[in-house]
Amino acid sequence: MRDFRHDHSALALNTATLGHNVPGAGAGWSPERTIDACAERGITGIVFWRREIEGRACAIGARARAAGLSVVGLCRSPFLVGPLAPQRHDDIADDFRRAIDQTAELGADVLTIVTGGVQPGTKGVKDSLKIVAEYVANAVPFAAAVDVRLALEPLHPVYGGDRSCLTTTRDALDLCDLIDADNLGVAIDVYHVWWDTDLPRQLGRAGNRIFGFHLCDWLARTSDVLLDRGMMGDGVADLRALRSAVEDAGYAGFCEVEIFSANNWWKRDPGEVLDVMTERFRSVC
Amino acid sequence: MRDFRHDHSALALNTATLGHNVPGAGAGWSPERTIDACAERGITGIVFWRREIEGRACAIGARARAAGLSVVGLCRSPFLVGPLAPQRHDDIADDFRRAIDQTAELGADVLTIVTGGVQPGTKGVKDSLKIVAEYVANAVPFAAAVDVRLALEPLHPVYGGDRSCLTTTRDALDLCDLIDADNLGVAIDVYHVWWDTDLPRQLGRAGNRIFGFHLCDWLARTSDVLLDRGMMGDGVADLRALRSAVEDAGYAGFCEVEIFSANNWWKRDPGEVLDVMTERFRSVC
Repeated sequence: MRDFRHDHSALALNTATLGHNVPGAGAGWSPERTIDACAERGITGIVFWRREIEGRACAIGARARAAGLSVVGLCRSPFLVGPLAPQRHDDIADDFRRAIDQTAELGADVLTIVTGGVQPGTKGVKDSLKIVAEYVANAVPFAAAVDVRLALEPLHPVYGGDRSCLTTTRDALDLCDLIDADNLGVAIDVYHVWWDTDLPRQLGRAGNRIFGFHLCDWLARTSDVLLDRGMMGDGVADLRALRSAVEDAGYAGFCEVEIFSANNWWKRDPGEVLDVMTERFRSVC
Repeated sequence: MRDFRHDHSALALNTATLGHNVPGAGAGWSPERTIDACAERGITGIVFWRREIEGRACAIGARARAAGLSVVGLCRSPFLVGPLAPQRHDDIADDFRRAIDQTAELGADVLTIVTGGVQPGTKGVKDSLKIVAEYVANAVPFAAAVDVRLALEPLHPVYGGDRSCLTTTRDALDLCDLIDADNLGVAIDVYHVWWDTDLPRQLGRAGNRIFGFHLCDWLARTSDVLLDRGMMGDGVADLRALRSAVEDAGYAGFCEVEIFSANNWWKRDPGEVLDVMTERFRSVC
């Protein structure tokens, strides 16, 4: 297991951590200002959201690299199924391809796929996962052609209805097995998997298909399952055990901090958030 | 698979469905009035909560049986671990034994165990599950002596932090294997397990250890993970597939409707709720 106590060269920022999603939160930092603030602190990986780079993907990617940062990933695919997905099949497929193109323009390594929930008119996750498999299988060669890797991210089962019919690492790896492409893997986010005692066994079959590892914490008495994620160390996830499991499986990439926190971290000065996350990365992760 | 289209003799009411938890909800029906309302509708199973039968367990059990009802279960053990558990070990063990005695006095078949969340001072679920195993192993012979069965209920992973470090059927059956007692089994609640594609495989190892099957529904866009459960048919759980899985595993007992619904069903007339749940049991379960 890597020793991060005196080294945060594997630390990456997901810009959601600075509250980009919410008008007024995160003090409205531009991608450029966020890049500079990371560079100043030796944070050498960054993950953007599509809305932040819209129309400027190439320039922002170049700017990040000039500042010494790797663009680790882009969030995210459109919802492919479920009540929040676009209505028309073609709109979903088109937007999925557009997200892949943006990932390539940005020079990012990975596009995260969030599947969406249970397809209206169906029950359970089975039919929805089949639809997801079709979209992903179609996207895989398109992504390979522009050198983009796709990471299926299983979300916490609390999102099963609306945001992700894909809720376990097991199901994500089953989808990878089914589609069987070198540029298709999984992203493991501690928020979504911390409770899953089957995780080490599942990661044992992952091989080189772990394309991302995301950090935050699960607060014991969380007040909101969407916007009340904890800073590493403030919750009950066993972060060291989780990182050990992904590293035992062969993962040696960035650890990406992604914290949605409307009432705490998004209200703070973004510079302070970066400082705290760096300290916590060294001390508790 | 049993055919319930013209037969609801396997239907049981968990009194929580009528809003007993909340002052003013459920029109404050007494256990006796609830028993009579069930009997009038041919609902022949009932599950109480401890607060409802406190000091009157024997009388209420006798009254239910006189009305033709089986008392299927009692809710529930104290939290054994986590931030909501009593502070002192002895208080937890004493209250656990008291719950077992009340189950026997009531003449109920099963006491449900809800484990509680992650033990303060620990990370992840592993240490907490060990503590749970100790409490349960100690309680098992005590329960056997008064002819009470104990059902470990895995709760949805959203409760992992505070209410249940036990979040999957897999973990619950692992605990059963570890303790290995005839009067220890599991309760399967569709709210908690609907997303779990591993469920059929797990139930395949359950044998005769399924002590309960609970019905409600998971609303696709749920507004509250504690008090916004759906009536059967209003959500995205594949209720028929779930019942098929427990019945394939050998379960032939009651199907217990347990709906916490502060802003919908608890605001309605309890008689209407009983009528709707009976109709839905026949039409969608």
